[in-house]
Amino acid sequence: MSEPEPWFTLGWSDAGVELLDQRLLPDREEVLVCRSVEEVACAIEDLVVRGAPAIGCTAALGMALAARQAIGLDAAAFGAALDAAHARLAATRPTAINLFWALDRMARTRAALQSEGHDVAATAEALREEALVIVVEDGEICRQLGRAGVELVPDGSRILTHCNAGALATSAYGTALGVVRAAVDAGRRVSVLADETRPFLQGARLTAWEMQRDGIPVSVITDNMAAHLMQQGEVDLIVVGADRVAANGDVANKIGTYGLAVLAHAHDIPFYVAAPISTIDPATATGAEIPIEERGREEVANFGNRPIVPDNVPVRHPAFDVTPARYVTALVTERGVLRDPDGAGIARLLRDTRS
Amino acid sequence: MSEPEPWFTLGWSDAGVELLDQRLLPDREEVLVCRSVEEVACAIEDLVVRGAPAIGCTAALGMALAARQAIGLDAAAFGAALDAAHARLAATRPTAINLFWALDRMARTRAALQSEGHDVAATAEALREEALVIVVEDGEICRQLGRAGVELVPDGSRILTHCNAGALATSAYGTALGVVRAAVDAGRRVSVLADETRPFLQGARLTAWEMQRDGIPVSVITDNMAAHLMQQGEVDLIVVGADRVAANGDVANKIGTYGLAVLAHAHDIPFYVAAPISTIDPATATGAEIPIEERGREEVANFGNRPIVPDNVPVRHPAFDVTPARYVTALVTERGVLRDPDGAGIARLLRDTRS
Repeated sequence: MSEPEPWFTLGWSDAGVELLDQRLLPDREEVLVCRSVEEVACAIEDLVVRGAPAIGCTAALGMALAARQAIGLDAAAFGAALDAAHARLAATRPTAINLFWALDRMARTRAALQSEGHDVAATAEALREEALVIVVEDGEICRQLGRAGVELVPDGSRILTHCNAGALATSAYGTALGVVRAAVDAGRRVSVLADETRPFLQGARLTAWEMQRDGIPVSVITDNMAAHLMQQGEVDLIVVGADRVAANGDVANKIGTYGLAVLAHAHDIPFYVAAPISTIDPATATGAEIPIEERGREEVANFGNRPIVPDNVPVRHPAFDVTPARYVTALVTERGVLRDPDGAGIARLLRDTRS
Repeated sequence: MSEPEPWFTLGWSDAGVELLDQRLLPDREEVLVCRSVEEVACAIEDLVVRGAPAIGCTAALGMALAARQAIGLDAAAFGAALDAAHARLAATRPTAINLFWALDRMARTRAALQSEGHDVAATAEALREEALVIVVEDGEICRQLGRAGVELVPDGSRILTHCNAGALATSAYGTALGVVRAAVDAGRRVSVLADETRPFLQGARLTAWEMQRDGIPVSVITDNMAAHLMQQGEVDLIVVGADRVAANGDVANKIGTYGLAVLAHAHDIPFYVAAPISTIDPATATGAEIPIEERGREEVANFGNRPIVPDNVPVRHPAFDVTPARYVTALVTERGVLRDPDGAGIARLLRDTRS
């Protein structure tokens, strides 16, 4: 068997922001080039790229693209163009906090440069550099996070995961799947059970694809099989990513995560959340304050060209749910493992990060 | 809006056993005519018809068809043909006990006629009549069961159901959806949340279709949304059907049922199982003894013509799971509501039925 081509989730080129089109996986590997902020925003909305850290990285690159395209403008028009780009990108998806974290970081960089009197071209160049730093750091953070999580993965573990919190959800390596990769790198023999994760099938399409690419054993199940496999003793631990962690440790993640957490609790199976510090939002006191994105009917009611729900029958489509902190056995970040996360533990973690 | 055409799940005609092809719903309403026992068996295996009571009815009609086609044979060859038909139909699906119940009933009828010295033609006619009685009784039993369950459905209930335990899973009216229909007939205002029920999508395609046909409000959710809606207080009760109830009250039903039961328990939501007495198997001591059908890769890994799992990535496909009796708030049968079902309660119920 020939070695598969290398691939990347997101990138930057003279042409624009380059994204592996995740809507087409696993059938086709195609890169979509976004040549304007509007195209970047639509790509985020349409799930060309998804996953909280990857959305943050993409938004940062989108701001760099906006700056590059505004180089010919005077300082006021440049600022207005970047404000508009910021607003457009911030309006794409409400739940993943990394989006706002990355946009805020780009805005702070811009403000610092402007206060130092740099011109438009220098500011644009600095924004490009900052975006690339965010992208590179994201991969490094995932590797640190993964290494920290290895202690939670005994040899022989059968690991259940939901959605895709892998290299496709970050700039590289992944969060939940970063823990899996780091365990493999540390010599642990593990296997992955991937919930297919309706409606967008991130588990069946994306997690299975990237685990297969890395030669890590993976099987796909429908979401409703997870409880049965827990009952049968076939799941040793669960690890998922996060779209936002509240100050009290509540976790917003892909719809279906909460149910898994309750089931894990009922079966005495550890339930781990792997996320970078940038996913923790100290301004969100509890999970109840996290806005849950409602997406459209078509993703649930159709599959490819085939309608699977009768016409005129409504569907529900909350894209995320909130898992109370009490169901989280540990939170894994690049700063280490926080067991039994709560408000005090999260505050300590954020303090340590800043120091 | 014009009145929709009436429809039937299964029927008998000069041409053979007629089945509404459930694989094609909700797109197309087509009747498949099975002209041989082999065609009936394949229809059951391929999910043209599914649902424990409907499988039982179809198998009974299959035996009547076998008898009609063997009328020209001598008594020994007739008996051999019917034995072969019985064996073929019994090998279609292992979990639903109604299949074996119906085949046993047809076998007892045949044995009684033979012991009374009836000829082949008279036996074939009596088997036809017995099959039609099974079909008609199944609808009547569902109506009784439904009426018994009304006491469990307060006005205004938001009812979650899984898979399809409706008219499409029985000869008419349904078990879980029979309770819903009877509640509506009794003037209760209710609404139904239908789990889409991967992989075959019985909820999205079938439950939504037949509820819409009856004008009962229904919305479809992906299976992994159920926990979130329970957490949000949007589910008042759960009612599902069953493929087999063990002597101790454990319930085998469509994969995903067990997870719902655990989640219902965690959220203090009543979890009801609606099934005819013929679904109770006193010969199965506990759920651990119920054979769980494993189905093929293709139903999980493909959707229509589109592969949703990468080639060579394995899938799991247990088609059913077992819910321990302790999670069942009540069992609803045509003999009434059995709260907190256990071995003693089940034994009492079966004794009452026989008397």
